[in-house]
Amino acid sequence: MSDALNFEGWSCPLPLRDHPNIVMGHGGGGKLSAELVEHLFLPAFANDAAAELGDAALVEVGGTRLAYSTDSFVVRPLFFPGGNIGDLAVNGTVNDIAMRGARPLVLSAGFILEEGMPLDRLAAIAQSMGAAARRAGVTLVAGDTKVVDRGHGDGVYINTSGFGIVPPGVDIGPARARPGDVVLVSGDIGAHGIAILSVREGLEFGAPVESDTAPLNGLVAELLDETRDIHVLRDPTRGGMASTLNEIARASQVGIVIEERALPVQDAVRAACELLGMDPLYVANEGKLVAIAPPDSAERLLARMRANVLGRNAAIVGRVTADHPGVVASRTGIGGTRIVDMMVGEQLPRIC
Amino acid sequence: MSDALNFEGWSCPLPLRDHPNIVMGHGGGGKLSAELVEHLFLPAFANDAAAELGDAALVEVGGTRLAYSTDSFVVRPLFFPGGNIGDLAVNGTVNDIAMRGARPLVLSAGFILEEGMPLDRLAAIAQSMGAAARRAGVTLVAGDTKVVDRGHGDGVYINTSGFGIVPPGVDIGPARARPGDVVLVSGDIGAHGIAILSVREGLEFGAPVESDTAPLNGLVAELLDETRDIHVLRDPTRGGMASTLNEIARASQVGIVIEERALPVQDAVRAACELLGMDPLYVANEGKLVAIAPPDSAERLLARMRANVLGRNAAIVGRVTADHPGVVASRTGIGGTRIVDMMVGEQLPRIC
Repeated sequence: MSDALNFEGWSCPLPLRDHPNIVMGHGGGGKLSAELVEHLFLPAFANDAAAELGDAALVEVGGTRLAYSTDSFVVRPLFFPGGNIGDLAVNGTVNDIAMRGARPLVLSAGFILEEGMPLDRLAAIAQSMGAAARRAGVTLVAGDTKVVDRGHGDGVYINTSGFGIVPPGVDIGPARARPGDVVLVSGDIGAHGIAILSVREGLEFGAPVESDTAPLNGLVAELLDETRDIHVLRDPTRGGMASTLNEIARASQVGIVIEERALPVQDAVRAACELLGMDPLYVANEGKLVAIAPPDSAERLLARMRANVLGRNAAIVGRVTADHPGVVASRTGIGGTRIVDMMVGEQLPRIC
Repeated sequence: MSDALNFEGWSCPLPLRDHPNIVMGHGGGGKLSAELVEHLFLPAFANDAAAELGDAALVEVGGTRLAYSTDSFVVRPLFFPGGNIGDLAVNGTVNDIAMRGARPLVLSAGFILEEGMPLDRLAAIAQSMGAAARRAGVTLVAGDTKVVDRGHGDGVYINTSGFGIVPPGVDIGPARARPGDVVLVSGDIGAHGIAILSVREGLEFGAPVESDTAPLNGLVAELLDETRDIHVLRDPTRGGMASTLNEIARASQVGIVIEERALPVQDAVRAACELLGMDPLYVANEGKLVAIAPPDSAERLLARMRANVLGRNAAIVGRVTADHPGVVASRTGIGGTRIVDMMVGEQLPRIC
């Protein structure tokens, strides 16, 4: 097997060539994750369509465009303020589908259960999944259950996949940002990551922070009702806004400048981030979206967001530029500008 | 959470009411697996479509019927004679889709990697997945990678999902067996389970036994080319032929009688089963299918199977009856008849 892996072209900041094993950072949604996909999975799968790997992919069936996505969930702990692994798994895939502008139709659920998992906790998780699916208007139609020996799991891991229909005239994707476009975010950022961190580490930050896990397909449908001319939609989960904006800047070959003061962050999240030396731009969200659209529709989209309970703290936070393609910059409160780079590994492992 | 789980109606042969935790048998594809789906997942998901859970589900999109399925793979060890977890994961979902008579189109792949997993082994697995997808004519279009801490995984777990198009006029499902129908199997049974067992336990049984993991969609397309009037197709994986036939007998409310002497079993598998006190009817397959069709097409289907390299040992092994609905019986070599019941738990844990 020694020739199965080609290390040529790896630009690892960690000495992977000397220690060629999986590290936690490979799951963090940053540079290490991207390298694993680009240098290991894509060459192995060896097809053009796989170049979409990581996003919802578009599949045409009988003239209908489907957006198709999968995500595994390994969040620790299983239950956290504002949700559990069950509704997180449903909302996560619903949102990935919605970020193509698609109307999600059906989901699958694959469970990897650890021997000894209490059935009442599993039942509570399954009931959260059912409730989340009903809220999002999708149907769980296919499933699978496997059991692994004690000490080879962590209670339950859940994979969801799903697909939905992309309406005619909608063309939303990470490579479609154009200079002059406006960057909106649908609400305050960082709540999911801080909620997980607070319960995991037993920290309290004044007001309790709850995960923002929620299905965004309803909000997306309202935005598309306002205008179909939306260029990019993304939910900034693992790696937060910073990773999402970097992925968009690279895929579209544009620069992005955000106004740090315009970013909505709830007080408790800001306090927690200051205490922990974290940057809200890098903290995971599970119920927020970034929208990039032409400037003439930005104010209308903002108004539609704010009229929806899931977008009531929406804001215009930045602009797409022709300058510095592939780079995200942030104008700080005191007038300076800093580069917002992608993280190498993970800030918080097993955040989703 | 204590009221989240309703134990009423559970008919557990194991004292689950006293020890309400997941046991290995919940993943075995037998009665315990079925109870978990029926009493925990289906009520939680609370919709009619979910009644299909466990099979490939049918989803109609713009007048086209799609067969949609998911499976997680936790096989131990990761590499075994005849394959590895990668091609197993691709073939498994390809086959689930094909068992609805559908032509598989696209797959997703979700990886749960354990910290410390060697990258060269992961690359070999990914390359097997790519090769298996090309062999089956499907495209891996969506993916996801998560990493869990050392001691919370087992190298790699893989979930695949996928969908394909059901051709017009095809209506294949586990509830469609009719009295008088003929039962065919596409080749010798039990190879996958014995291959896994031999490498796991370090046993040798004369000739080495290799897993039969293979994509069956090509064979299914040939059978449908012969006649669209096939009632049931199933791949007898976890729980083997016995579980598959029991599921069909119950779903169709028919009896099934098989001729034990007609069952193709390779000598090394038979020898291993005798040595270990196992019944080939209960041993997993990953490249075989059971077909149930009206008697007038049985011989033609058998000929088509035998003309395909994946069906060259095909045989007619039994018949569907109106007697004893829901029950599978086997006529033994010495003229007796025995009931072939579903297993309660698992024969070999983590077989797929």
